[in-house]
Amino acid sequence: MQPHPLANLRRSLSGIDFFRAMMAGELPPPPMVALLGMRLVEVDMGRVVFAAVPAETFYNGLGMTHGGFAATMLDSALGCAINPTMPAGRSFTTLELKVNFTRPLRREVGEVRCTASVVHVGSRIATSEGRIVDIHGKIYAHGTTTCIVVERSEPPASDA
Amino acid sequence: MQPHPLANLRRSLSGIDFFRAMMAGELPPPPMVALLGMRLVEVDMGRVVFAAVPAETFYNGLGMTHGGFAATMLDSALGCAINPTMPAGRSFTTLELKVNFTRPLRREVGEVRCTASVVHVGSRIATSEGRIVDIHGKIYAHGTTTCIVVERSEPPASDA
Amino acid sequence: MQPHPLANLRRSLSGIDFFRAMMAGELPPPPMVALLGMRLVEVDMGRVVFAAVPAETFYNGLGMTHGGFAATMLDSALGCAINPTMPAGRSFTTLELKVNFTRPLRREVGEVRCTASVVHVGSRIATSEGRIVDIHGKIYAHGTTTCIVVERSEPPASDA
Amino acid sequence: MQPHPLANLRRSLSGIDFFRAMMAGELPPPPMVALLGMRLVEVDMGRVVFAAVPAETFYNGLGMTHGGFAATMLDSALGCAINPTMPAGRSFTTLELKVNFTRPLRREVGEVRCTASVVHVGSRIATSEGRIVDIHGKIYAHGTTTCIVVERSEPPASDA
Repeated sequence: MQPHPLANLRRSLSGIDFFRAMMAGELPPPPMVALLGMRLVEVDMGRVVFAAVPAETFYNGLGMTHGGFAATMLDSALGCAINPTMPAGRSFTTLELKVNFTRPLRREVGEVRCTASVVHVGSRIATSEGRIVDIHGKIYAHGTTTCIVVERSEPPASDA
Repeated sequence: MQPHPLANLRRSLSGIDFFRAMMAGELPPPPMVALLGMRLVEVDMGRVVFAAVPAETFYNGLGMTHGGFAATMLDSALGCAINPTMPAGRSFTTLELKVNFTRPLRREVGEVRCTASVVHVGSRIATSEGRIVDIHGKIYAHGTTTCIVVERSEPPASDA
Repeated sequence: MQPHPLANLRRSLSGIDFFRAMMAGELPPPPMVALLGMRLVEVDMGRVVFAAVPAETFYNGLGMTHGGFAATMLDSALGCAINPTMPAGRSFTTLELKVNFTRPLRREVGEVRCTASVVHVGSRIATSEGRIVDIHGKIYAHGTTTCIVVERSEPPASDA
Repeated sequence: MQPHPLANLRRSLSGIDFFRAMMAGELPPPPMVALLGMRLVEVDMGRVVFAAVPAETFYNGLGMTHGGFAATMLDSALGCAINPTMPAGRSFTTLELKVNFTRPLRREVGEVRCTASVVHVGSRIATSEGRIVDIHGKIYAHGTTTCIVVERSEPPASDA
């Protein structure tokens, strides 16, 4: 398989440089992030913020955004919070994602932000937590993730 | 707000009739399900199967599908497994979703299926579990959900 | 069944008065909390702290505390953080608990503290998050919970 | 630190031989398992069963067993289901545990059984799922875990 161009670039940049290049528009966002209209708006060591609009395109059959919308936003943010703590040549794979849905997320809410922060970074495991809030600070979803650190000599996606 | 047409139809049909109408093409799939190319391919009392293709459109920056792809597929299937157990006039809201990612999911894997089954249905709470497998039965992700039952006299999405 | 004396007392006191009476030694701790040597050391609106010693009595077969030790401590703290937000006559039942184990917890670590805080309190659902840390602030485990609010006219434990 | 005798024995036996010796009474159960009166009653490749009695000693302040009781039972069973799949010289550490509480668990229920089965075993990660049921098959709790495989040349408990 031809690896995705972003996967190759990621190998030569540290996590934080990679994300800063993406924020600056020098790198395209990953396809799924673009598809759901999500934008990386802040990145720091161990903390990132994504923004997105809960448009009707992302609705389920119950008149609000599908759970997958918040789950995708949290998965992006939770992983990206861990990524900048990795030097070039090391990366991570997400093992699991846990999402709580606390309020229905609809178009009327307007743009929401998902802030994620690292909780633990060890030699092999990292965890992070995040929240999706509106402009007033109301929480619509929150979650955590567990990632495993992988060396670049290992296959890029790991536990096959 | 103008509720989504599917939300209104859902109120007059039992869960299983609603999904059978969707499978028969008499109802359009919810927007997010359509966006990710997911299709409901089996529905029974307490068990459903969705199918989808892990296309590059759904990739993250690491050369495989974004975690949100599997999370969306599981969220759809886990909720739909619970829905048919509800009579017309009652519905549910998803409280939380837990996903384990066990293998990288790439285009080369081909179409995958997500099977979900009810674990517990009580008077107020229901839980279900599901798996995403390829044609050979290899597991790419698995997960569980917790839903709360809501009466139709209550606001359609509940914990605002 | 004869209800546990604590269950009756809880019905006539608000959550925060109940816990303050327990901290003052006017009420005995619940049996499981006593069995694992856990002590409620701080309680406030939406936030509690428990303390405990990871003694060998609580070890698994791998030379560190059993995962159930941290899980019990988190379950106590996460539920108690929500409880004080409830008026007399309302209570809650825990629907689910998620624990991350980030470091082995052994006797040598000394007394640890589990701090838990409410994330969301709605009309029917509440969530909280917590961490177990040592005296230096190192994190050994962290977790979240989802609770459902129950009226006292309902059976005390709910989803039977 | 003096490692627990069970930790040393575990290194020279394969997972399944270790658990069979424990079932036969040739090895003592780990302290926490003994403290909560849990007994390993079946062990096979990728599947174990524990039994325990939800006695008042394990109650919370709400007149039913503390969530930590079911969490401990699931953590034991979920880990032990994975352990027998490991050869001598390899072991695992639990990264996270997710528990759903579906019914209140009280003394009147009588002895319950917790059955756990492996879902995925990869080169570095393993997951399992389990349920606590009474003699009639009613489900009181269910859960999943994620474990990381560790080589014996590594420190016995891993992500310090």
